[in-house]
Amino acid sequence: MISSNPVRGARDILPREMLIRDQLEQQILAIYRSHGFSRIETPALENIDLLLGSDGGENLKMLFTVLKRGDKLKVHEGSTVSDLCDMGLRFDLTLPLSRFYSNNAGELETPFKAIQIGNVFRAERPQKGRYRSFKQCDIDIIGDPTVSAEMELINTTSKALMAIGFEGFTIKVNDRKLLNAFIAKAGFKEEDAGSVCISLDKADKIGADGVKKELIEKGYDEAMVNAFVDEAATVTLDNIGDKVDEPEAVADLKRVIETSNALSGGRYHVVFDFTLIRGMGYYTGQIFEVSYGPYGFSIAGGGRYDNMIGKYAKNSVPAVGFSIGFERIVNILLEEQADKASENKRILLFYDAGKDAMTEVIPCADKLRADGYTVNLVAMKKKFGKQINYYEGKGYGGFMVFGRDEEIKAF
Amino acid sequence: MISSNPVRGARDILPREMLIRDQLEQQILAIYRSHGFSRIETPALENIDLLLGSDGGENLKMLFTVLKRGDKLKVHEGSTVSDLCDMGLRFDLTLPLSRFYSNNAGELETPFKAIQIGNVFRAERPQKGRYRSFKQCDIDIIGDPTVSAEMELINTTSKALMAIGFEGFTIKVNDRKLLNAFIAKAGFKEEDAGSVCISLDKADKIGADGVKKELIEKGYDEAMVNAFVDEAATVTLDNIGDKVDEPEAVADLKRVIETSNALSGGRYHVVFDFTLIRGMGYYTGQIFEVSYGPYGFSIAGGGRYDNMIGKYAKNSVPAVGFSIGFERIVNILLEEQADKASENKRILLFYDAGKDAMTEVIPCADKLRADGYTVNLVAMKKKFGKQINYYEGKGYGGFMVFGRDEEIKAF
Repeated sequence: MISSNPVRGARDILPREMLIRDQLEQQILAIYRSHGFSRIETPALENIDLLLGSDGGENLKMLFTVLKRGDKLKVHEGSTVSDLCDMGLRFDLTLPLSRFYSNNAGELETPFKAIQIGNVFRAERPQKGRYRSFKQCDIDIIGDPTVSAEMELINTTSKALMAIGFEGFTIKVNDRKLLNAFIAKAGFKEEDAGSVCISLDKADKIGADGVKKELIEKGYDEAMVNAFVDEAATVTLDNIGDKVDEPEAVADLKRVIETSNALSGGRYHVVFDFTLIRGMGYYTGQIFEVSYGPYGFSIAGGGRYDNMIGKYAKNSVPAVGFSIGFERIVNILLEEQADKASENKRILLFYDAGKDAMTEVIPCADKLRADGYTVNLVAMKKKFGKQINYYEGKGYGGFMVFGRDEEIKAF
Repeated sequence: MISSNPVRGARDILPREMLIRDQLEQQILAIYRSHGFSRIETPALENIDLLLGSDGGENLKMLFTVLKRGDKLKVHEGSTVSDLCDMGLRFDLTLPLSRFYSNNAGELETPFKAIQIGNVFRAERPQKGRYRSFKQCDIDIIGDPTVSAEMELINTTSKALMAIGFEGFTIKVNDRKLLNAFIAKAGFKEEDAGSVCISLDKADKIGADGVKKELIEKGYDEAMVNAFVDEAATVTLDNIGDKVDEPEAVADLKRVIETSNALSGGRYHVVFDFTLIRGMGYYTGQIFEVSYGPYGFSIAGGGRYDNMIGKYAKNSVPAVGFSIGFERIVNILLEEQADKASENKRILLFYDAGKDAMTEVIPCADKLRADGYTVNLVAMKKKFGKQINYYEGKGYGGFMVFGRDEEIKAF
């Protein structure tokens, strides 16, 4: 017998969770749309050259690739992934959006404010709460070089999070330009910035001493590393302007944080966090991450990536995006408020399968549906008492038996 | 420069179409849910053994398979797809549903009425209107052996089609049991039924003579073939009972057609069509297909498949499904009623990017949003007249300039 398990690291979604997911998606989508964003969709499959040629970083190691078909597939000893495969599954929605924008720019409004809601795929080592296929909800503004775009994204994402019941979250903001300038000023070479950032990003987990140790092991000068890590810990929004020579970026950062806090009405907080790095290699400006309550993971994140679209288009095009981690949100809501999903009241209508009842049962059910009820039809079994008991635990608000004109259980 | 085209046979979906798609999906989903069906979701990827071991017929030739990763990938001269790949993309939603039901039966209501809306993948030769990734909307009833399930599916699917604006469609019904009995009675061997059906299915395209020719070329006796094809053309709902010895199946077929027509109120028609075959190998009972207007393709189809779930579960479980061809529906609606999508009235609010306007612009936009408007924000450019002209063609219902308290264009 063939296994009925889903593929490793993926899962089946049952009705109760699906109802919550659908409602969340619709609530988020409604906020995004009312804020002037337009939904688009790209295929789950992309050409392998696009995927492998991207700044996907660690995600490229987790690529699901699709075998060539027919005559195009030629298998030899030592054939590589690029020889064998012509496509792969997208690992995020940002790379497909950049391709989409280049492909369709002539038909899109400028600036283009995009919504994308869809699944992405990463061959991660399966572990609790991490899936190999998961949904992301992204908004992006393409074509606006100013931090007005950052402010709009922070405002819109916050509204979406509040609409689905989140309050009191913290939005951490940093800027890759400031990070890079600070790293260069400490004496690192420009090309080492990425490697230094990867170590700095681990401060949460391994502490300042751990970061120092790792950087020294990478071969950087011990005195330089110690001074750098110690000074990084003292950086604040007030003194960052003294530590790096990036007056415009510092002014923009202050504007975004002040404006966003002024707009939040105290329902969420926007803070500067110089330890915020974010893994992706493609960020060029401000970066954000949203943390909530006691959860040790971010529920949303994003940043500016001004150089990506230029790889596919004739001109460089500024872009910035913010992505809600849909699966994480769902997990929190399933944990915190198990019965959040509101559904139409459900009625179960029993009918006698022996009789030709459908011509009368269905119009009766339709009347109830017109009144806003969800009506399910089930044939009566001989052991009707046992059958009723079975359905009592299934969340129906009422039972009716067709033909008897009798309501078994009050609503 | 890397190509910005989507993968061959797939496409990008632009904002206008996406709005229509979202509305259609929500309308269909609302009907399905109100009729007692529950939405579930399975991963787009399935294990390759499941896919290759299925009755997928022609679809198995169009499988997208996913390369093994890491140490598990061993490439040798002559390695087969099964050697190289451990997963594939689903080619329909019925096979995953059968696996899902076996995997989760203990947590599901009996009978289980499932909704599935999702993309499936087939490596078809790209041609107009055929995509390699496309959306299906399926409902299935699992665990009801009676034709009440067929009647519910026909009723619910018709309601969904009417909710999205279709009227006057025709639902063709046939029964594989009757087809098989008729083929056997004509003198074919039981194991030839599938091959005979494939030829018979082409009657629409190649005519009765073409079918005869093909069957004779397949090696069947000429006299038998001629008598068979000629008699098949004379089969009606009134005489089918005389031609095959399947009194129960005939009575069930008549009940389904009569009941469904009684419920349709003349808004659609349910007819017997003995030439309806449907390609899939897994059907065991009644089969359906919906045709609409002048379009030479079906917009929905389905049937009973009582033997599929038993391949993955301990016991055989009766099942029947009906699938709406979402892409075909979208194409018809895009053609017939280009401006069907209703959207909130859209307002474009211009602001002065030079000033720190966001703390005032966003609350102003929020007031309009609370009144039901979709509000987009855009920074004013120097050539404001030109900018206004650009946006005039973009479907905005009104423009406002923030700060001037001035409405450029009336709603």
